[in-house]
Amino acid sequence: MGSVDWTFASDNTLGAHPRVLAAMVESNVEAAHGYGDDEHSNAAIAEIRRLLGDHVEVALVATGTAANVLGMAHVMRPYECVVCPKTAHIYKDENTAPGSFGLTMLPIITTDGKLRPADLDDAIGALGNPHAAQPRVVSISQSTELGTVYTCAEIAALATKAHLHGLLLHVDGSRIANALVAESVSAKEMISDTGVDILSFGFSKNGAVMAEAIVILAPEIGDGLVYTVKRGMQLVSKGRFLGAQIAALLQDDLWLNNARVANAMARRLADSLTVASRVELTRSVEANHVFVRMPTEIHERLAGRYGFYEWSPGEFRLLSSWSTTEDQVDAFVSLALG
Amino acid sequence: MGSVDWTFASDNTLGAHPRVLAAMVESNVEAAHGYGDDEHSNAAIAEIRRLLGDHVEVALVATGTAANVLGMAHVMRPYECVVCPKTAHIYKDENTAPGSFGLTMLPIITTDGKLRPADLDDAIGALGNPHAAQPRVVSISQSTELGTVYTCAEIAALATKAHLHGLLLHVDGSRIANALVAESVSAKEMISDTGVDILSFGFSKNGAVMAEAIVILAPEIGDGLVYTVKRGMQLVSKGRFLGAQIAALLQDDLWLNNARVANAMARRLADSLTVASRVELTRSVEANHVFVRMPTEIHERLAGRYGFYEWSPGEFRLLSSWSTTEDQVDAFVSLALG
Amino acid sequence: MGSVDWTFASDNTLGAHPRVLAAMVESNVEAAHGYGDDEHSNAAIAEIRRLLGDHVEVALVATGTAANVLGMAHVMRPYECVVCPKTAHIYKDENTAPGSFGLTMLPIITTDGKLRPADLDDAIGALGNPHAAQPRVVSISQSTELGTVYTCAEIAALATKAHLHGLLLHVDGSRIANALVAESVSAKEMISDTGVDILSFGFSKNGAVMAEAIVILAPEIGDGLVYTVKRGMQLVSKGRFLGAQIAALLQDDLWLNNARVANAMARRLADSLTVASRVELTRSVEANHVFVRMPTEIHERLAGRYGFYEWSPGEFRLLSSWSTTEDQVDAFVSLALG
Amino acid sequence: MGSVDWTFASDNTLGAHPRVLAAMVESNVEAAHGYGDDEHSNAAIAEIRRLLGDHVEVALVATGTAANVLGMAHVMRPYECVVCPKTAHIYKDENTAPGSFGLTMLPIITTDGKLRPADLDDAIGALGNPHAAQPRVVSISQSTELGTVYTCAEIAALATKAHLHGLLLHVDGSRIANALVAESVSAKEMISDTGVDILSFGFSKNGAVMAEAIVILAPEIGDGLVYTVKRGMQLVSKGRFLGAQIAALLQDDLWLNNARVANAMARRLADSLTVASRVELTRSVEANHVFVRMPTEIHERLAGRYGFYEWSPGEFRLLSSWSTTEDQVDAFVSLALG
Repeated sequence: MGSVDWTFASDNTLGAHPRVLAAMVESNVEAAHGYGDDEHSNAAIAEIRRLLGDHVEVALVATGTAANVLGMAHVMRPYECVVCPKTAHIYKDENTAPGSFGLTMLPIITTDGKLRPADLDDAIGALGNPHAAQPRVVSISQSTELGTVYTCAEIAALATKAHLHGLLLHVDGSRIANALVAESVSAKEMISDTGVDILSFGFSKNGAVMAEAIVILAPEIGDGLVYTVKRGMQLVSKGRFLGAQIAALLQDDLWLNNARVANAMARRLADSLTVASRVELTRSVEANHVFVRMPTEIHERLAGRYGFYEWSPGEFRLLSSWSTTEDQVDAFVSLALG
Repeated sequence: MGSVDWTFASDNTLGAHPRVLAAMVESNVEAAHGYGDDEHSNAAIAEIRRLLGDHVEVALVATGTAANVLGMAHVMRPYECVVCPKTAHIYKDENTAPGSFGLTMLPIITTDGKLRPADLDDAIGALGNPHAAQPRVVSISQSTELGTVYTCAEIAALATKAHLHGLLLHVDGSRIANALVAESVSAKEMISDTGVDILSFGFSKNGAVMAEAIVILAPEIGDGLVYTVKRGMQLVSKGRFLGAQIAALLQDDLWLNNARVANAMARRLADSLTVASRVELTRSVEANHVFVRMPTEIHERLAGRYGFYEWSPGEFRLLSSWSTTEDQVDAFVSLALG
Repeated sequence: MGSVDWTFASDNTLGAHPRVLAAMVESNVEAAHGYGDDEHSNAAIAEIRRLLGDHVEVALVATGTAANVLGMAHVMRPYECVVCPKTAHIYKDENTAPGSFGLTMLPIITTDGKLRPADLDDAIGALGNPHAAQPRVVSISQSTELGTVYTCAEIAALATKAHLHGLLLHVDGSRIANALVAESVSAKEMISDTGVDILSFGFSKNGAVMAEAIVILAPEIGDGLVYTVKRGMQLVSKGRFLGAQIAALLQDDLWLNNARVANAMARRLADSLTVASRVELTRSVEANHVFVRMPTEIHERLAGRYGFYEWSPGEFRLLSSWSTTEDQVDAFVSLALG
Repeated sequence: MGSVDWTFASDNTLGAHPRVLAAMVESNVEAAHGYGDDEHSNAAIAEIRRLLGDHVEVALVATGTAANVLGMAHVMRPYECVVCPKTAHIYKDENTAPGSFGLTMLPIITTDGKLRPADLDDAIGALGNPHAAQPRVVSISQSTELGTVYTCAEIAALATKAHLHGLLLHVDGSRIANALVAESVSAKEMISDTGVDILSFGFSKNGAVMAEAIVILAPEIGDGLVYTVKRGMQLVSKGRFLGAQIAALLQDDLWLNNARVANAMARRLADSLTVASRVELTRSVEANHVFVRMPTEIHERLAGRYGFYEWSPGEFRLLSSWSTTEDQVDAFVSLALG
């Protein structure tokens, strides 16, 4: 696959932002206590607390799978389950990682990848029935795997419904920055103020080498998070290298600027591709996903040079990232439209 | 703990070898397929196959916990167990990570951290008893957590005994390089030729940022390893950054040279500290561990400046690493001996 | 709930067939080796082998949950999953028992509770994708939770498709006897000859106190079943009492006669209830389930005296059992039709 | 093994007390709600509350493995562990059942099968260390697997130490009745008043067919126990048959009288066997275990007729039960002493 261009296949096919790697090199100077008890990890955590509240519990991990699975596993009892859209990454793209950590998943069919409060009714109806896994966490992705974005009001409505029945709200924020810039709100407004209980704060897709943060906002349920991270095989010995990545992205709003680039390039890609009416958008472009249908001849031309995925029969998924350039978009569109 | 010097507390308190970080920066150039299907990961795997045999299955992961747990979990059925020394890292320092992946551990008391064939007899006697977990893997550390090193003959004897009863031999090689240079043999001689079935090939303690390899040498049992890595939350999206680290360490024998430094500095530390007979070695120095007893006044002086661990009452553990310098050793000894 | 009559709520609300209890009393005479190594357990196993083939592996357990979960858990690796109808008991009525034993479930929406070969296509398409749990077992219920019955040809078609792709076919036979008498075929014809790999051979609903059998028909995958039963907390110390129940039911075709009664009573109930066109069947009556819609006044009258479940809004589920009598049916119908 | 007499091999080789089976037959009269919501289960629970306190949570299960594993699993988080004697049944005789439900076991070497408060010190010292499983439950057996019995004061001392550090005390009471009659105290005095938090209330060895109770005495931790039982595959559909067994044993002190017989027969066996000084007790006889050394000729004579286990090289274990008679003891002794 040497000659295939993976630029638009995902937002993790690109490497890391140069400032992230520079920060790792800079952190590499002297002996430090291991396992997250170091100045770089502490700086990253302090920055996350500045964004989301001083009270939040934070743990740094290496992969998004781990952030999602461990964040939820930490608050669940073995007879409880997670309610999520059937399109959720945590349901369909993590092999058996959730189950390995005791997460039973209850998938809900949606039209656009977004849960609404009424979607929780069946699950809530199972509370108290010993034959049913007991719902404990509602998990949503922001932005979603279908490129849609929840408004703050929509998140708050889910949180309210969940809390009313003793459930918690988890946000898979592997693309949280894209959602924040799409909605033009702060992390505090979208996460802390809406009542989110657990956030997987994503950095890998946003320019990190490999780094994510588990953030527990709800009081009392975050105790002992480090134990969960350790049993999840994510207590990295040279923790400074996780901290340095995240601190670099949070400094000077690099993370938000990265997301702005990604979203703008998705917009540009969508607008340019559809200008001649031969390529058709199948879903609204709200963050950095572009889903399209296209004539066979266009698909064949593109597929000869670019790697990207067929999402459903005849529907293709394209993603932009922090590193996508206007030239890259224009070259892709130019090949597409011939 | 700002003013504490952690140089001798562990071999993971230091950062990464500069060539490792340089390799990561160099790998950061273009879009690549994710999840380990990239040229840097492939280069690392090719290098490991060159060392251990073309037939071995290899998977790259971020932490040593993951390498140990997943390598063994991949070959075990849920009613089977792992026999290991009671001092094994996998038994005593991984919280409940082994159990989370279905590993039941059967600890054996040893005098020096090394298992002998006769130590397996009780476990082997449980084969066929439905009330007992069925032994499947014998796990040893090379070098051990007590700083001792198995000879190739000792490993081969364990492998032979294990295989005779249908068991597999796993080596926790978080310090495999230190053992290889201590014994002056090649990886092939110590691992492939002795009959080892599964190796956790350690790089983090040897100069990596965070990178380890699971190597399955025995035929047939390695199929599907990528699924185990994925369910273990270790299928890193930007896999190139794991590959680049390992490839850098394996290039031009950097990993072995790093281990030579570490072992030499442990030797220097042990010899210098004990020259005046006031500090006493409690265990033989075979790789990069130094265990000592010392008068209270010396301990107090050292503890005022250096962080290190009390291994057992009155016995302290010191470790050297690839980055330890003669000056660092001499300064430590100078403070100790006043 | 003292005055509520639970006769039609389920086929487990009745007690045990008198011959089952008599057999338990008869078995209670002298000291015997425990944990299934006794003459009564051996007799039950011999009888099952006579029905299904001399080569099958059999283990006796106390609950249907255990038979289903452990039978499948025994043959699965932790990164594999089970494909089943969304209406399957094993998916929706077992709390988190499947996940506790490593079973990840992939539910498929069906119209009548029955899987067809084409329903497996999406799951089969995930084979080889590391991000997806790997399908290993197809699980069907015979008869189904919706009262439908697979023909032998339908089962054979599923087995053929499954085997073609390296999957196994499991049958939840908690009501296997009802299906056999409905189809007028032998257990060998329906199970062994169609290619079923694993059978949960149900006895509890058929008149046992508490007893089920896990039967593994496929060669090689049944080794070590006793270990799975033990780790599943189902290796009953006084195993004779499981064996005696099953042997009693299999003797002189008691199990089949019990099922004939149950099916006939369901038929009688369906026919009588619908005679006046005010109560309507919502599904075909093929074994011992009767699903109906009824006017509110009838429902209120019945609900004042009988306990039974609302299956979907406005649709009610009634079940007959080995102990249901014509008088019981007639009294129920009489109250319904006023 | 038809001609081998298993009378002294274990206290589960005998069947059930006739009154237990009679109670099961008597309970077999009419339709009842399933899954433990029936009058017989409720009667058993009421009786247990009368013994141990009105506030205790109770669940009925079919096996002792399940009672021990689920009772502890219910109160543990996945990063926590159980401290127990290395001789504990739950550690050494349950295959991987504990680990399957998330129990990591920390075995402690003892001389007589009994834990003392000081034995907990190392485990308590691991509290707060993320690399170590966090101790949550101390599990003791009463009477122990070595036939020893804790006094109430000893249990209270363990409970006090455990509670001081936030741990809970679990009692594996598979032979609790034997301990109660040995100490001549009530269940309330030995369990409720000493501060025990969780009790596996054993009935199978005491004369049941298969029935045990999980009793949670500590406030707040018992919520949701039915969910744990269900996910543990122990929510028996015809729950009445568990309830009837336990209610029968608790009625008119049958359980205590059964234990008195067992203990007296152990005493008789020990006294008679050792009268001629050729057979030697290796441990004190406090409940219904007798451990002996004997000359080879005696062993050979006995082994030709009786089945029993070699506990350690040259040391044999004999057990009496509720059904052992003086004639059985005398016949055994007569054969032994020739």
